[in-house]
Order: sequence, then C-alpha cells, then structure tokens
Amino acid sequence: MKLISSNILQQIITIRPANSYKGTFGRLLAIGGNINYGGAIIMTSSAAVHAGAGLVTCACHPANLTALHTIVPEAMFLDYQDQTGLSNSIQQADVIVIGPGLGNDQLAAKLLLTVLQRITKQQQLIIDGSALTILSQHREWYKLLPPQTILTPHQMEWQRLSDIKISEQNNIEQNLKMQQTLGATVVLKKNGTVIYHYDQTVTKLAIGGPYMATGGMGDTLAGIIAAFLAQFKQAATNQVIDAAVYCHSAIAKQLAENNYVVLPSAIINALPQFMRQVITDA
Amino acid sequence: MKLISSNILQQIITIRPANSYKGTFGRLLAIGGNINYGGAIIMTSSAAVHAGAGLVTCACHPANLTALHTIVPEAMFLDYQDQTGLSNSIQQADVIVIGPGLGNDQLAAKLLLTVLQRITKQQQLIIDGSALTILSQHREWYKLLPPQTILTPHQMEWQRLSDIKISEQNNIEQNLKMQQTLGATVVLKKNGTVIYHYDQTVTKLAIGGPYMATGGMGDTLAGIIAAFLAQFKQAATNQVIDAAVYCHSAIAKQLAENNYVVLPSAIINALPQFMRQVITDA
Amino acid sequence: MKLISSNILQQIITIRPANSYKGTFGRLLAIGGNINYGGAIIMTSSAAVHAGAGLVTCACHPANLTALHTIVPEAMFLDYQDQTGLSNSIQQADVIVIGPGLGNDQLAAKLLLTVLQRITKQQQLIIDGSALTILSQHREWYKLLPPQTILTPHQMEWQRLSDIKISEQNNIEQNLKMQQTLGATVVLKKNGTVIYHYDQTVTKLAIGGPYMATGGMGDTLAGIIAAFLAQFKQAATNQVIDAAVYCHSAIAKQLAENNYVVLPSAIINALPQFMRQVITDA
Amino acid sequence: MKLISSNILQQIITIRPANSYKGTFGRLLAIGGNINYGGAIIMTSSAAVHAGAGLVTCACHPANLTALHTIVPEAMFLDYQDQTGLSNSIQQADVIVIGPGLGNDQLAAKLLLTVLQRITKQQQLIIDGSALTILSQHREWYKLLPPQTILTPHQMEWQRLSDIKISEQNNIEQNLKMQQTLGATVVLKKNGTVIYHYDQTVTKLAIGGPYMATGGMGDTLAGIIAAFLAQFKQAATNQVIDAAVYCHSAIAKQLAENNYVVLPSAIINALPQFMRQVITDA
Repeated sequence: MKLISSNILQQIITIRPANSYKGTFGRLLAIGGNINYGGAIIMTSSAAVHAGAGLVTCACHPANLTALHTIVPEAMFLDYQDQTGLSNSIQQADVIVIGPGLGNDQLAAKLLLTVLQRITKQQQLIIDGSALTILSQHREWYKLLPPQTILTPHQMEWQRLSDIKISEQNNIEQNLKMQQTLGATVVLKKNGTVIYHYDQTVTKLAIGGPYMATGGMGDTLAGIIAAFLAQFKQAATNQVIDAAVYCHSAIAKQLAENNYVVLPSAIINALPQFMRQVITDA
Repeated sequence: MKLISSNILQQIITIRPANSYKGTFGRLLAIGGNINYGGAIIMTSSAAVHAGAGLVTCACHPANLTALHTIVPEAMFLDYQDQTGLSNSIQQADVIVIGPGLGNDQLAAKLLLTVLQRITKQQQLIIDGSALTILSQHREWYKLLPPQTILTPHQMEWQRLSDIKISEQNNIEQNLKMQQTLGATVVLKKNGTVIYHYDQTVTKLAIGGPYMATGGMGDTLAGIIAAFLAQFKQAATNQVIDAAVYCHSAIAKQLAENNYVVLPSAIINALPQFMRQVITDA
Repeated sequence: MKLISSNILQQIITIRPANSYKGTFGRLLAIGGNINYGGAIIMTSSAAVHAGAGLVTCACHPANLTALHTIVPEAMFLDYQDQTGLSNSIQQADVIVIGPGLGNDQLAAKLLLTVLQRITKQQQLIIDGSALTILSQHREWYKLLPPQTILTPHQMEWQRLSDIKISEQNNIEQNLKMQQTLGATVVLKKNGTVIYHYDQTVTKLAIGGPYMATGGMGDTLAGIIAAFLAQFKQAATNQVIDAAVYCHSAIAKQLAENNYVVLPSAIINALPQFMRQVITDA
Repeated sequence: MKLISSNILQQIITIRPANSYKGTFGRLLAIGGNINYGGAIIMTSSAAVHAGAGLVTCACHPANLTALHTIVPEAMFLDYQDQTGLSNSIQQADVIVIGPGLGNDQLAAKLLLTVLQRITKQQQLIIDGSALTILSQHREWYKLLPPQTILTPHQMEWQRLSDIKISEQNNIEQNLKMQQTLGATVVLKKNGTVIYHYDQTVTKLAIGGPYMATGGMGDTLAGIIAAFLAQFKQAATNQVIDAAVYCHSAIAKQLAENNYVVLPSAIINALPQFMRQVITDA
C-alpha cells in the first residue's frame, strides 16, 4: 500500500493543449438527485464543471432543474425519466457518474440497470452513493459492471457490497479479493481513504480530516473524479483517480485553515484556483 | 443570574476528533417553512449546516425545495406532508428543531403534535417561532414536552406561553417558576437574552445589539443551537446552549463593525470562519 | 430649489436605539412582480431588507416565490391574489410600496385600488413603476391618495400622470402645481432627480450618473425609500426621502469608480456597509 | 486578415454620455433556453446585463423563470410560447439574439422563423447556437436574413451552414464567398476566432486559450456582442463586434492567470470592472 504523494497533482493537472475545444475535455453525464436529495447531484455536477469537464449534463428529478441552473448555469438538465433523452446522453457521454442523491426506489434501480446495460467499454463509469446500495441488493448485476467501473463506497456501503464488516475493512487482502471479484476500482472512503485499483495496486490518502465530515462531501468527490477522467485522458486511470481524490482533500485541508467545517460548496468554488496553483507551483 | 462569558466559546467549540465521520456530528431535522415563510426554515437549515451539523434535513412546504437547494445544497429536502418520510426522519434525528416559518394552521399544529408524540428521550427538541404560539394554544400538550426541550420564545411568545406579561418578564422568579412547570430550557430572546436552564441556573447574554433587529435572526439562532447540540455531545447541554447563543451574537457584533444592519444570511456565511477562529484563539 | 447635501446622510442614518427590536424598524409590504417582471419586486424587497427595514413582506405572483427566497430569505412571501392575506398585510404594514414589476392589467389595477381604499393616514404609501401608469389611467383615484403618498415617476410616467410633457418638465412651477393637485410628494427621476415635497419645498439631487442607466434601478430606489421611512420615524419625512434618494446614488457613484455599469444588485449588497460608514464618518 | 488589437477596447468602450437613460443603452431581447438548456439563455441574458445593455428581456421556456430571476433579477422574463408578448418584444427590441439553448425542435424553428419574418432593418439580429443548426436545415430562410445579421457559429455549425468542411475552414476565400451569399457577418468561433464582416473585411482574434473550452462560453459571448451593439450605437458595427469578441477573451485571459478553467459565470461577473478598467487605462 502506497501513500498518495502531493506530486500526483503536478503529474496529472497539466497545461491544457493549445488546440482544444469543449469536446477535448469530455462529455460527462451525472445521474441522481431524486425529489429529496437534489442537492447531491447538483454538487456533483457543479464540482465537475468547476474541475474542468468540457460539457456536463445532469439527469435528475425535474424538481431540481432550477436549483441546478441557478448554482451552475453551465450544466445542462435532463429529466431522468425521459428515456429517449437519457439513451442519447448515455451514448454521447465519455464519463457517467450515477448515484449521488439517486435514492433506492424502483426508478433508481431501473436507471442503474439501464446504464449498466448500455454503457460500452469506451466509456467510464463511476457508481456512488445510493446506487452502490442498489447494486449490493442486485448482486446478479455485478457481472454487468464494465471493467473500468469505479466504485466510491463509504464503509457501510462497502460492507453492503462486499459482506466485509466495517471492523474487518482494514484487511487489505480481503478487500482486494472482493475488488477482483467485482473487477472494479474501489475508492473506500473513510478517515484515510484507501483505493483498490483495477490493477490491484493499493494507494492510501494521508490528508484530509474531520472538517470534511459533512453531508455532500462524497457527492463532490464523485464530480471531481468524473471531471478528471473526462479531461485527463492521456494519463493512466489509476493516477487520475488518485489525483482527484488527493485534490479534493488538499483543497479541504487548505480551506480548513480558516474554516471549522469545510462545506462541499466551498471546495467546489475553490477548484479552478487550486488547479491553477498546481500549474504555477510545478 | 450569571453573564455568559466569551470563554464559553473555547470551552465548547473544540478541535474535532480525528476519527470521525458525518454521523459523529449528528443528524438534524428542521421542520417549518410553509408557503409564506419558506425563508425562515431555509435560514435555520443553512445555519445548521454552516455551524457544523453532520447531516441536515429540512422538512417544509414543497414550494421551498428549490430555494433550499440553491442556498444550501448540502441540506436534504422533505415534504412536510409526507407522513412516512417524516416518521422516518423523526426517528433517525439526533436533534429536531420545529417552528421557523411553520405558521399556525391545522397542519402546523398536527406537525408539532406528531413530533411531541414520537420524540424519545434520546433526542433533543428545540421549539421556535410559530410552533411556540401553537404550543401556547394547546396547553394540554405541555405535559408532552420531553425533559430536554428547548424553547426559544421572544417576549410576546413567552407571554403567550406563560401568561407573564412582557412588562413583568424581568421577574426572574416568576419566569423560573413557569420554566419548572414546563420542565424545559427557556431561551427568552430580547435585548439581553436570558436563558432559564433546565437545572434552574439562569444565564444572561451581554452582547448583541440593535443591528440584529431584523427578520430571520431568531430562525438563524435556532439552527445554530440545533447544530451545536448535534455535534458537541460531550459537553453539558447548558453550556452548549449558552455557547450557541453567544456565538450567534458574537458574530453579529463582529459584522456590525462594518454593517449598519447585520443580515442573518451574513451571520450564516461567517459561521465556519468564526468557529475556526475560536480554535486559533484558544 | 435646494441641492441635497451629503450631510443629509448623517442627519438621517443615525445610531440605532439600544432598546429596539424588529418592530422598531417597521413592517414593510412590497406589492408587485407579475409573471414577467418578478425581478423588479424582488430587488425592491431585497433593497428594503438590506437598508434595514425590520420585517419585509413581498406580495407578488407565485412564480416569483423561489427567486425571492433565494435572493433574500429574510423576506416573507405573499401571493398577491390571496385577498385575505393581502388585507391582513396591508393592515399590519407601516409602509407600503406598490408598483415595481406590477404590470398594468386588471389584477394590477385592482391591487392598486385595494391599497388606496384600505390604507390609513397612519401608514405611508409609495407608488412606483407600472402602478403610476395605472394611476394615470384612473384619474378618479387621485382623490383617494392619502396625504403622505410618495410618487416616484420617471419622466414619461410623470407626463402620463400630469400631462406635463417631458420637454416642459423643467418648469418647476408647473410641476409644483400638479404636485399640489395630487397632494403627494413627487420624486421625479431623471438625470438630476428633483423632489417636489409635500410641503412644496423642492430639492434636487446633484450626484449619480449614466452608470445608473440600467433596468431595476428605480425598483431598488423604491425599496430604499420604503426602508428609510419604516425605520427613521423620528425624522421629518422630507428629509428621510432626500436621504434615501441621496444614499442610492451615493452608493452607485462609489461603485462606479470600479464598474462601468452599476447593477442594482450591487447597490443592494453595498447598503449595510455604506450605511455603517455614514455612522463612522459622522 | 487583420489581427484585432487591444486598442479596439478603448475605441469602443467609452465614457457614457452624461445625459442618458436606460433607453440610451438599448432594449435587448434574448430568445432561447428550452427545458434542457436553460442555463445557456440565462448566461446570455446575464452577460448582456453585466455588459451594460439598458433593458434585457429573456424569452425562454417557463421552467427557466426562477433561475433567470435569481441569477440576474435585472432581466425581464417572457414565456417564449406567449405569441402576443413575443410580438411586442420583437417590435420593441433594438437587438435580438436567438439561439442559446433553444434546441432544434418545431417550436425552436417556429421561433426563428417568427423573428426572421418580423425583424426590421432598424434592428440588429444575432443568431447563435442551435438556431444556426435550424437555419442550416432551412436554407430557404437564408434569403430572410436581414443585412445586418450576425452569425456566431463554431466550426461544426459553420460546416452545417456553409457545407465547408472543418478541415477546409482555413480557406478565407471560401468562407468569404459563403459569407457574401448569406449577406451576414460571420463570427467563426474556434481557437483563434476569425470574423468575416459584412463589408468583407476579415479580422482575427489572437488572444484566448484552452481555459475557455467549457460549456456556456459561446452563450456568454452572444450576450456581450448583443449588449455592445445595443449601447455603442455611435461606432461602426464591425468594430463593435470586434470589441465584444476581444473583450470576452481578454477577460478570460485575465481570469486564467488564477483559474485552471474559466467559467462563463466568472467572465460575466467580471464584465463591469473590466469595462471600467478600459476607461481608466485609456
């Protein structure tokens, strides 16, 4: 298990190619946000926009349209019950993130299944939040996970997915075994997040702190991972994920110097400046 | 009657335990916000998030969903007419605050009664705003108040609850007698707020000023008290309440150096930095 | 005709009495904002809150509820078609402002007539925007204007009200004659606003500039006048109006040092700090 | 082909005439924003307001009313299906911009045709975004374009309009030929935007960069061009367009010193200060 070093930021966040356009930095589709948890998918979408994704579409309950457009007018809206629209958006996306605020009712399960059935090997998939709980309840879907799937469970969600109890989740071998079964990358979120990569390397985050223990933190991380995957295509996926996870906590750590609790919205707003600073410091 | 000292901040607002997660800092349920007074419960919820509560759910009229998510996407939404959702949320909450912008129609009364009937001794309850007026109109409910209830009336609301006229509310003994009858902590909000604690100690706030005389100030205080109770569980409840009341006015005082009127929204935004400064100054 | 001096600010914006509460600074009712022009009454309401009014209710088309609460959660909402709610709010208000974004359909006319019929001599009334056009179309209502009415027409609206052509509006005597007929204070908004006071004194604004020539500027002024009247009750009405008009343009002038166009929203946000500075400079 | 020099800013953005009012700086109508792409027309409208247009109306899907008013309360709303309202607004506008987030369904096509049929030679028209795709699908409408039309295609849209493949779009002669056929000004947006003016002069933008490759950038540019045309009527249209295009990228370049990706919202907020700085530097 290797600690993620701050160098990962300079390795991944590099000067953008001069001759580029929106498409260069990826089409991202974020699916989630039911009638109760709209803020979650909005934070995911806003994080993705602020982290540099080229084009972001947010598929959610229509009640969330206005808050989405107000917080991040740069993102596009899709009613997640619009099957034609969703099919098109899934097809066009470079990266799909599903789960933040999705809930776990029948519609949520249907949306997850739709994504699993339609996604191709050329696209990247991040499964987060309640979509992980749904997945754990439909183990027959494990085999549908495309090889590049990234799962971002917190400890209870990982227990649901893996049957490994929280008290035993420090057992790297056991986690790795389950990661192999899933054929996915597992970002196991906790105090000292550990990432079980697709190639079975294991990396660990040594920064972050209790100032991050607040609702919406994971939704924001999902958006950053998605945006990094969408735009930093030249780099190794393992490193891109490590960089996103590190970036999220590094911003929080910086903000915590002046804030007792670091709100996800504050991290989102700080993304463009923090990422620029990485270039300057390189 | 003892003046609340600024030391209370350092005593209560301490460095967060390293090994903590969202749940460590409490689940908070804020109930209020009818079709006319949505801003009130949104300010309560936003104050709670900014003051460090782990997870905040806002149960209100559905017309307020979008403004809630736009102002504070970190908070979750619940339609206060969704009985199943409300039952679940009441059961899961560590702290419930009811009243800001609730109004006093039949639905409002029904919501208050539901909370009083379902809340357990392990949970903390804050009754504020129009829920206090409703309570004063249903004196048979006084006996339903759980022992740890916190009431935050302004003077007219206290008159309604206690039959003590505003002109006689400087009589500490009389207030204490009523406080005993209610078996609650009474935060009597006025110029020089006085707190009649559950254990019959009486504390008084010596800071604050007329720059705070604007709509929404009480709603914001309710959110801060709730968040402090949700996260500072190791401390004595008396002191946690004193700290919340002090913190609210201390921020206002600081902002008043540069603002003729201090808006509740400004206090809310200043919470994370102010609370961090308490640690630095300690 | 006397120029309004900057001293007017120090005379009116004074240190708030220590022993005060929300009610001390007035209840304000803002009526306007139809389906097309919601931003107008929201700016009026927000200006009133930021200028220090104690309690602000915004009566408008229900489509505007969310934008109101998002921009200024401190304000309360009322559906302007809710006749009972409106009756109560009119009765409780210290100051009523009607017109910003009201439009001039039948409902708008009915709302203006309702206010004119119900307002008492103890309350202050400001008629702005499209309500002035409606008034000009119902000259039989001129006699309903309470003596303390304040009209805030721009030049075209004044022509409609008075039949004095824009080209002849520099004729002070003619304007004064019409002002006497109306028995109102007329704030004639233009490059170099002139105020024809109720007592027939005439004052003129010598500050402001073309950076203020943008939509929403008048709506914002109406909110500031209303808030000043609501809270500075000890001073002469003439001077309170002059101070509000001066304050509005003085902030714009200050912001124009760094802004090509000064948006009403920027003036609103600057109100608390500017008003505090007046105290510091005194 | 001439590079646009930074001098263009000082030539066009000049001190406003003292004796001016809202109308002096133009009435602008922005049409777009369907149920999915509301953020686009909101950014166009907000850019126009911040760039100094006198009065801005945004005609869009009613689902976008609230986000519009929240982001820019200075703008007015119109339901783009309200035919009477739209007719009036088209008639009153000095400048019309159609396309941002309009989509390309039947309603969108009908709206574009309505504008083309009703616009007069005294008004200026900007066609952007999906309206360009619609136009390319209705070549019989090319002859309806008023002589002063400004088209702002990106490369794929230009291919659709002109049948000139992206790989051949560096051929100035070929572009000029098509520009003549259309009788319009073509702002061909790409890395190094080239403007084919109505009078067949060709200018090229030498600033900007990959930090601008994000959704909403074009919508924002359309709003700035429209606002510049609305207010800088004394200058040659060619130069006004060059100034708007330059201004948009100059702000982005400035912000990119501290931001990895420059969001359109950040450019919008920076407009008033940047334009003021042009005067100061002159």
